[in-house]
Amino acid sequence: MSTAPTQPAFVLVRPQMGENIGGAARAMWNFGLDRMRVVAPRDGWPSEKAVAMASGAGRLLDEAGLYDSTAEALRDVDYVFATTARSRDLTKPVVTPEHAMTQARALIASGQRVAVMFGPERAGLENDDIALANAIVSVPVNPAFPSLNLAQCVLLTAYEWERQVTETPPEVLEFAGTRFANGQEVEKLGDHFEERLEEAGFFFPPHKAAHMKLNLRNMLSRLPLTLVDVQTFHGMLRQLARWKDKSGGSS
Amino acid sequence: MSTAPTQPAFVLVRPQMGENIGGAARAMWNFGLDRMRVVAPRDGWPSEKAVAMASGAGRLLDEAGLYDSTAEALRDVDYVFATTARSRDLTKPVVTPEHAMTQARALIASGQRVAVMFGPERAGLENDDIALANAIVSVPVNPAFPSLNLAQCVLLTAYEWERQVTETPPEVLEFAGTRFANGQEVEKLGDHFEERLEEAGFFFPPHKAAHMKLNLRNMLSRLPLTLVDVQTFHGMLRQLARWKDKSGGSS
Repeated sequence: MSTAPTQPAFVLVRPQMGENIGGAARAMWNFGLDRMRVVAPRDGWPSEKAVAMASGAGRLLDEAGLYDSTAEALRDVDYVFATTARSRDLTKPVVTPEHAMTQARALIASGQRVAVMFGPERAGLENDDIALANAIVSVPVNPAFPSLNLAQCVLLTAYEWERQVTETPPEVLEFAGTRFANGQEVEKLGDHFEERLEEAGFFFPPHKAAHMKLNLRNMLSRLPLTLVDVQTFHGMLRQLARWKDKSGGSS
Repeated sequence: MSTAPTQPAFVLVRPQMGENIGGAARAMWNFGLDRMRVVAPRDGWPSEKAVAMASGAGRLLDEAGLYDSTAEALRDVDYVFATTARSRDLTKPVVTPEHAMTQARALIASGQRVAVMFGPERAGLENDDIALANAIVSVPVNPAFPSLNLAQCVLLTAYEWERQVTETPPEVLEFAGTRFANGQEVEKLGDHFEERLEEAGFFFPPHKAAHMKLNLRNMLSRLPLTLVDVQTFHGMLRQLARWKDKSGGSS
């Protein structure tokens, strides 16, 4: 017995243009999905145009299952999503891509085999296909402009899968050879600023000086200054002082 | 004073092919975004190819701001995201599209003007552009195959925006002229099944009958049966009985 796959299969139903099959393969592989099934592609199989378009994702086409009918492609699948606009003819749950991939993840975790069907360009899935699905996935596009093409629909679904299983942290700070300045470093920078600005007569009028200094300290602490930033400021302040001394000397 | 916009501006920096500008417009408008800015498009502006590709989203191009430099395009913007792979040369927060759009929503809610920059095809944003951004947005693509094009990057970012502000419920049950069967209707269907199956000798051996009936009732309650489903089952059971009586009569 083979173990159930750890990702959903994407089933392209009667795709028309090879380019779009290749584009779908790229979109899948962009997000680490590589289980493709193809049902009755209009222009035959294998497809040179699909291979040309897939470029680095060509392996998905080599390994793709080819089927004569949708039912055949879904025979070993436990839970099927059909991507389409809502069908008012069939009683069926309609879920967002986000919710669908949450469900897919839970189903796969419990050992179920999951597939997502994508219809042909323009026409989309037929009711006979949709009747084989457990649920409909509908991308919440602008109702005034619902123009997603096949590869885009595959891309968004694959993105949703990856987004939910990814271990990418929501935010990483990229330090180009530095680190955040620590409290002491920020404090000393504040001292340096105050010293120079005091000399320059910046804290005026005197009754406002305390508040101005507080604001300066608050700003320096609020900014996420790195050690390199702090060193840069020190350098600028020193140079401004030198420049002032020089011009003072020459005048 | 004009009020701050309720959505981020998407800034295309030095885009090369008109088709890609048109594709970006479509991708934005698919998710209800219509504030585009274009910086120094390689092939001039307006672009016939962009207009041809944008089709229904052509309004975005008509209304797009045209700028000579990135700095000029960002002059009135309070917070800027740059979509790019991580830059190891610049100290900058790197966020997922999801986190970026969460931040964008919060910033816009507090009256800030937000922009998202997209670099030219192939080369991407230069460090001089990225230095103008507050944060980097990096799509967590498969490191073995990071092949997103401009319109796809715009699509995913626009999708993330819409996903987070959408009021689309995660799941809707589309009822084609029916509703869920209520408890009484499911109970009566169970009675009907039991009656026919009793006659047909299905509950055998007798010491297993109670458990078989329990399983049947459990199944009928677990399935989300609609009233139409229940009526269909009643009809099938009646017809099977008629068929049996007929064949019994003719034999």
